[in-house]
Amino acid sequence: MANRNIRIVIEYDGSRYQGYQRLKNSSNTIQGKIEAVLCKMTGEKIELIASGRTDAGVHAKNQVCNFHTKCKKSVSNIMEYMNGYLPEDIVVKEIKEVNERFHSRYNVKDKTYLYRIWLGNYPPVFQRKYVYHVKDELNIDSMKDASKLFEGEHDFGGFCSRKVKKNTVRIINSITIKEVGNELQIYVKGNGFLYNMVRIMVGTLIDIGKDKLDKTAITEAINTKDRSKAGEKAPAHGLILYEVNY
Amino acid sequence: MANRNIRIVIEYDGSRYQGYQRLKNSSNTIQGKIEAVLCKMTGEKIELIASGRTDAGVHAKNQVCNFHTKCKKSVSNIMEYMNGYLPEDIVVKEIKEVNERFHSRYNVKDKTYLYRIWLGNYPPVFQRKYVYHVKDELNIDSMKDASKLFEGEHDFGGFCSRKVKKNTVRIINSITIKEVGNELQIYVKGNGFLYNMVRIMVGTLIDIGKDKLDKTAITEAINTKDRSKAGEKAPAHGLILYEVNY
Repeated sequence: MANRNIRIVIEYDGSRYQGYQRLKNSSNTIQGKIEAVLCKMTGEKIELIASGRTDAGVHAKNQVCNFHTKCKKSVSNIMEYMNGYLPEDIVVKEIKEVNERFHSRYNVKDKTYLYRIWLGNYPPVFQRKYVYHVKDELNIDSMKDASKLFEGEHDFGGFCSRKVKKNTVRIINSITIKEVGNELQIYVKGNGFLYNMVRIMVGTLIDIGKDKLDKTAITEAINTKDRSKAGEKAPAHGLILYEVNY
Repeated sequence: MANRNIRIVIEYDGSRYQGYQRLKNSSNTIQGKIEAVLCKMTGEKIELIASGRTDAGVHAKNQVCNFHTKCKKSVSNIMEYMNGYLPEDIVVKEIKEVNERFHSRYNVKDKTYLYRIWLGNYPPVFQRKYVYHVKDELNIDSMKDASKLFEGEHDFGGFCSRKVKKNTVRIINSITIKEVGNELQIYVKGNGFLYNMVRIMVGTLIDIGKDKLDKTAITEAINTKDRSKAGEKAPAHGLILYEVNY
C-alpha cells in the first residue's frame, strides 16, 4: 500500500521546550513529542516535516507539518488519537490528507511571525509567557517609520545570530505594527527567515523606540551584514509563528 | 503615627494556589504570598483584607484588597516593591491611599465573575489554564433563556457546596452570556456569592445546554434549596473574579 501524506496544523506553547527540532540527546522538543505519538500510533518510524524550525521558547499558533504513513485510520481518528496522547501544550488543530507531492517546508510561499510587546507598567499575569514586557516608553511612530526599511529584498546577514556562508538574502513582504490596548503587536511576513532573524529585527526596532539606536542602524546592518550594527535580540517568549501560506 | 490604609487592585493566576485565603499549614495561598511580601517590606504583621475569597484554582483579574500600615514609602514605591518580590503569577495593578474607613470586604456593592467556556473541537493551547473545554454541542439559546431565572433576589442555598445555617439569600443583578469566537463567556454580577455558587450556576447552565437538565431545575433548586436538583459544579480553572464595585 502506498504511503499516505497527512498535513496537520499545530499550535504549541514553546515555553518548556528546546525548540521545534528533534535533538539526539533530548526528548524535549516539539518534533520529538509528536513523532513519539505517531510512532506509538502506527508502529512506524515517522519523520515529521515542518514549515520550519522554531527556537527554544518560541510558540506557534499555526505551524504546518506533514508526514507519511501507512496507517489506515481516518484523519479525524488520527487527530483525536494525537490530541489524546500529546501533552497539553501541543495540539493538532486541523488535519487533512494531501497529494503525495506536498512538502510543508519546500512548498512554503510565505510565513508570518507575530512578536508581542507589553507596554503596561505591570506585567500581565495571564499573558506573561507570551509577551515581552518593556517598561521603558517607546516611540511607536519612529518604530513604525523604521520598520519600513526592512521591507523588500535585502541581505539579512546582519540580522542573524550565526555566521552562515549560505545565501542570506530574504524578502520581507510587510511589517505591520499594531497597538492593541497595552500591547504592541509586530507582524513580520516574509519568504524565509534566518536564525534569530525576527528577534533581532524586533530588538532593533525596540532599541529605536527607546532612542538607543537611530533607524539608519537598519540600513547599515543590511549594507555591511554586520550583526553588531543591529540592536539587541528580543527574548524568545514574545515570538509566535503566526501563519504559513502555500 | 496613625496607620495608613492602602487599597490595591491585584491580578492573579490561581492555577498553582490553594485559593485566596491564608492557611495555617500552607504558604501556598494568594493572601499568604502577599502578606509575606508586606511583612518583609514593613517589618509589621499585616493582614490583607480582600473583597472576598476565591477558591483553589480560581483566577482574578481585578481583586480589590486593602491593608493598614505605618510604612512611609510612597504608594508607587510600595507597588514597585511588591511587584519586585511577588511571584510572576500575582501582580499589583493599581494602588492608592484611601480613607481609614474603607474596607474592601464590607464596602462591596457588587461583584462580577466571568466564567469562560471553550467550545472548539480542540483545546486552546494558550488559554488552556483559563477556559473550560466543553466538547459537547451546547444549545446556547436555551442557556441564555434559563440564565434569566437566576436574576433577582433568591435563596441560593441549593447552589452552595456547603451546608450553611446562615442566610443564603443573594441578589443576582444580571447574567450575560456572550459568544466570542469559539468561546462562551458567562458574566455573573451579584451582591454576594456563596461557596462554589457561580461554579454550580454555570455547571447547571452547561447541563441545560447539553439537554441533560431542563431549565425548571433552576427554579426547583431555588425553591427547595436542594443542591441535588442543580447541575454539576463547573471546574475552578474557568472562573475569574472579573470586577468589584464599591
